[in-house]
Amino acid sequence: MTYRNPYTMEDRSGLLHADQVVDLNSSYAAILYREGITEGAYRIADGLLPTSTIDVLRGGRRSLDAAREVLEFASKMIDTGKTIEGPRGERASFRAGEVKLRAPLRPGKIIHTAGNFREHAKEAQKAGWEFPIPQWISFLKNPDAVVGPEDPVIYPSYTKELDYELEMGIIIGKKCKEVTPEEAVDCIVGYTVFNDITARDIQRMEMKNGLLNLGKNMDTFAILGPCIALRDEVPDPHNLKMEFRVNGEPRQQSGTWNLSVKVPEIVSRYSVVTLYPGDMISTGTVSGVAAFREDPFKYYLKPGDVIESEIERIGVVRNTVVAGPPGRIKPPVSESQ
Amino acid sequence: MTYRNPYTMEDRSGLLHADQVVDLNSSYAAILYREGITEGAYRIADGLLPTSTIDVLRGGRRSLDAAREVLEFASKMIDTGKTIEGPRGERASFRAGEVKLRAPLRPGKIIHTAGNFREHAKEAQKAGWEFPIPQWISFLKNPDAVVGPEDPVIYPSYTKELDYELEMGIIIGKKCKEVTPEEAVDCIVGYTVFNDITARDIQRMEMKNGLLNLGKNMDTFAILGPCIALRDEVPDPHNLKMEFRVNGEPRQQSGTWNLSVKVPEIVSRYSVVTLYPGDMISTGTVSGVAAFREDPFKYYLKPGDVIESEIERIGVVRNTVVAGPPGRIKPPVSESQ
Repeated sequence: MTYRNPYTMEDRSGLLHADQVVDLNSSYAAILYREGITEGAYRIADGLLPTSTIDVLRGGRRSLDAAREVLEFASKMIDTGKTIEGPRGERASFRAGEVKLRAPLRPGKIIHTAGNFREHAKEAQKAGWEFPIPQWISFLKNPDAVVGPEDPVIYPSYTKELDYELEMGIIIGKKCKEVTPEEAVDCIVGYTVFNDITARDIQRMEMKNGLLNLGKNMDTFAILGPCIALRDEVPDPHNLKMEFRVNGEPRQQSGTWNLSVKVPEIVSRYSVVTLYPGDMISTGTVSGVAAFREDPFKYYLKPGDVIESEIERIGVVRNTVVAGPPGRIKPPVSESQ
Repeated sequence: MTYRNPYTMEDRSGLLHADQVVDLNSSYAAILYREGITEGAYRIADGLLPTSTIDVLRGGRRSLDAAREVLEFASKMIDTGKTIEGPRGERASFRAGEVKLRAPLRPGKIIHTAGNFREHAKEAQKAGWEFPIPQWISFLKNPDAVVGPEDPVIYPSYTKELDYELEMGIIIGKKCKEVTPEEAVDCIVGYTVFNDITARDIQRMEMKNGLLNLGKNMDTFAILGPCIALRDEVPDPHNLKMEFRVNGEPRQQSGTWNLSVKVPEIVSRYSVVTLYPGDMISTGTVSGVAAFREDPFKYYLKPGDVIESEIERIGVVRNTVVAGPPGRIKPPVSESQ
């Protein structure tokens, strides 16, 4: 995960243990110091556990092993009521409430898949949605649209139909291409909660021309967080409850057991393009989006809404919907000719 | 631009002057040394002109001013027959033929627009293409698919219709959001040649479901280069000849004067999402693609083809089409339901 350090205001890579945020870089330097490695401590920590989470993932197995050392060390410290300090005297553990959690990373690319939860395809068809949602369809989502826990989600003035789509994000930990489902498992570093915020009216206009961009890609349209649950912390990614709430009221309730294609096969199939550490592949959403309900305008998001995206064993991301300023620009979306 | 240093094998940011590739970082350190700034030379050079081109762009005006100093210095040196050396004795100028040119950068995101050259929309309609191409349509292109001059373009085993689309790439130099066309000019750092390689059969299958991804986004499907022609080197971006050749034979011949929307308006409209330094916005292609010809299979690319993408004042990118290995994975593309 990534948190904002309250002293330096830097975004830094950390881990969550028992309601504590633990700084990876400083804690690893502390471990090395205790072993008598004083001169090289930060050099090694910067190499294996740099402050950017995507750079930690790029370090592969060696960086993950170092992060596991930090987890073991931090558990002992925290469970005996101690706080952690880096060798320079900097604080390296915080109560979760003391720091702002950030999006765990800005993925290098986000491959957004759409047809894996057949329940979403069925509700679309039932609601008379104009477009088929077969098993294997996808588009790229804008990584610059990523926001994390506590960040506002901007309701752009350009849409009247702001919708939600709770999904699981699969985070890649290893460069790979054309891997089989068996090989794909080893390329997954973990999972995150993803909410694919959507301007349904813009989406509809775009898809009539066979394309999709701004309906899915405006600023703040990709909620990610609260952390990357590592693969070994999620023994069965197909057995996780999923729930999305608006002002406390459940809107989407399902679970990853409803995936019609298993996670390793999703990764395998999309590895027809090279995947890199820090890329994300989404699963598509479960049923319950506003657009496909009987009275959608009752359910579309509104400024002021507090929204919660939750997946079992990964966590919950809470955001507030905030009205954007009046638009200065006509959005580049054409009605179909 | 970016070149591969033949001694260190690093990809480093450079500039082209009179058939010479000049290393920005080392040359700037050399300039500082000559002024007596010996201790801090590389520190300042690393700050203003780091070795990665996207980081140079992120430096904004200050980094561009430093690059202009290098250009002035390099012109004097090269025009009087001298070579340039960095203060550490490293070579800082090369004949273009001595080094491998790389893609100028990996854009943070690529917004691919499609309807700006109306001639392409017209040829599509004439050829009976199933999808309308109105003025304002777009999708995101995979930045990991970028290749540069001399790189092979892989013909994946998954397509039988590999097509080309010569376009101009507009490179963003300044973070901006919702800028007017007048303001947008200042956010453009320069232009590059872009060829949007396309698997037309996969594109057709995807667009039937209202989406587009792999038909445009397989590895090596984004040719970029040979350099970023800075905005002040291109006094009129709407007056540039464009030509794409296969084995020397012209296939696309047009010019940016045929753009139905001017460059500042394109940037303005797509700035409904935040644009960052190093992002690229494409213009869409001109007429002459294989798919819309009378006998398309005669014109689709074939392994062994040498292809040249050229825009006046920016340059030419030459690539060879190479057959990819037999696919191990069924690509995740569904026929429409």
